[in-house]
Amino acid sequence: MNILITNDDGINSIGLRTLAEEISKIANIAVVAPDRERSAISHAITMHKPLRADRVIIPDTGISGWKINGTPADCVKLALEALLDFTPDLVLSGINSGPNLATDVIYSGTVSAASEAAMSGIPAIALSIAGHELDDFCFISAASIASKLLLQIINQNLPENMLLNINIPPADPSIIKGIAITRLGNIRYVNSFDRRIDPRGKAYYWLSGQPVDNTNDKGSDVWAVKNNYVSVTPLHVDLTKYEAIDTIESWNLEIADENGVGRGNE
Amino acid sequence: MNILITNDDGINSIGLRTLAEEISKIANIAVVAPDRERSAISHAITMHKPLRADRVIIPDTGISGWKINGTPADCVKLALEALLDFTPDLVLSGINSGPNLATDVIYSGTVSAASEAAMSGIPAIALSIAGHELDDFCFISAASIASKLLLQIINQNLPENMLLNINIPPADPSIIKGIAITRLGNIRYVNSFDRRIDPRGKAYYWLSGQPVDNTNDKGSDVWAVKNNYVSVTPLHVDLTKYEAIDTIESWNLEIADENGVGRGNE
Repeated sequence: MNILITNDDGINSIGLRTLAEEISKIANIAVVAPDRERSAISHAITMHKPLRADRVIIPDTGISGWKINGTPADCVKLALEALLDFTPDLVLSGINSGPNLATDVIYSGTVSAASEAAMSGIPAIALSIAGHELDDFCFISAASIASKLLLQIINQNLPENMLLNINIPPADPSIIKGIAITRLGNIRYVNSFDRRIDPRGKAYYWLSGQPVDNTNDKGSDVWAVKNNYVSVTPLHVDLTKYEAIDTIESWNLEIADENGVGRGNE
Repeated sequence: MNILITNDDGINSIGLRTLAEEISKIANIAVVAPDRERSAISHAITMHKPLRADRVIIPDTGISGWKINGTPADCVKLALEALLDFTPDLVLSGINSGPNLATDVIYSGTVSAASEAAMSGIPAIALSIAGHELDDFCFISAASIASKLLLQIINQNLPENMLLNINIPPADPSIIKGIAITRLGNIRYVNSFDRRIDPRGKAYYWLSGQPVDNTNDKGSDVWAVKNNYVSVTPLHVDLTKYEAIDTIESWNLEIADENGVGRGNE
């Protein structure tokens, strides 16, 4: 089994290192990750400057990898198209330090790396620990759970155009209740920006905001993690909202004007 | 009618200017756009540095706006949460210089700005001209089409959690056949990266690639534009792949181990 590992916290992050060590026990791994933290970079790609790929040894391990001066999506693209001499059986992105839950997944570099792989037809899983101020044990425990899950998942026929978004509670394994297959919840923030005045009297804005509690939405990923389940959410990579096509057809949109241009009927 | 206009080509781009001039004839507009080109930035947001919002007059117009040192998604967030004293009835993103079609929309800053608005419950439309090396007339013509369409769309009940992705062929209006309601096509590239050697003998990689022809996929956005239709594609902002939940439930994933941790049945 050949597995590509990437992330958005960067090649030197503890989440990547711990995952690589754990997964290298059960598979051949290749690590291709950003050279620095690229959180909240979403599915950005680098078009207007060149990418560099430098071979490195991941700190405190004997594992070699590539560090890339690009985004998580760049890493996956470059790995699949230029760096690796094999096609991975699976791409793992993570383990992210912090949650990737609910509507916020759209901002996630971790999730986008997995999504990029899925777009290339490769099964992919994004892994995050849904907590903050995590210690080493959290990552070791999460990597162990990830390893167990991927051994089960790799034998399934993953639907095309799909990835799995897994969030692991930052809890002691003994109190994790099990797996919940979930949908994304909603996150809304209040006071999203903190307006401040700089030393020269000019305004600036920090993205901030307190999330409105949404943990009562049973069946959602947020609910699952709050209740000490490992949340597994299937995400699609085809953004078409198929069920709306008929509705929009019924609007009979037109651009007819003096030139006689009208709505097509094909 | 109050309309927020943004884009990813930056506040000085011709697409934004032309759209703002056209839409200001039929609505009150506010312009909040990146201070420079941010193509392929996807849904990235700025968390780790402050944002600035500077009032500017858009070149060659009397229209005032805000330029932001951030991404298209930042612009929409900041406009809605901090800059505007009203909630827009609609958000328009564009007019992008170049196509935003098929699977490539996931990389698009233009589409992500509209998506950010939709996530806040505001109807949103991404507008692109599906061609390259565009002249002024292309933008004037596209802005006119956009204006006609939005007057029809604003009176509809847009489904929640949806945006419209509109691509306009770079053709003379007289040969545009009409509107096609489409799904996203697939784009695959060959030779995705161009590997080169720098003057110091070190390799670097440019994202490149020739798209594999996909214009025969009838009903797709790519097909529509190729056949001189204005393509209107509904996109969702909820990334959950609901139809896969039952399948994954049936896998009976487990993390049971010596600690007695098992699969939850809630």
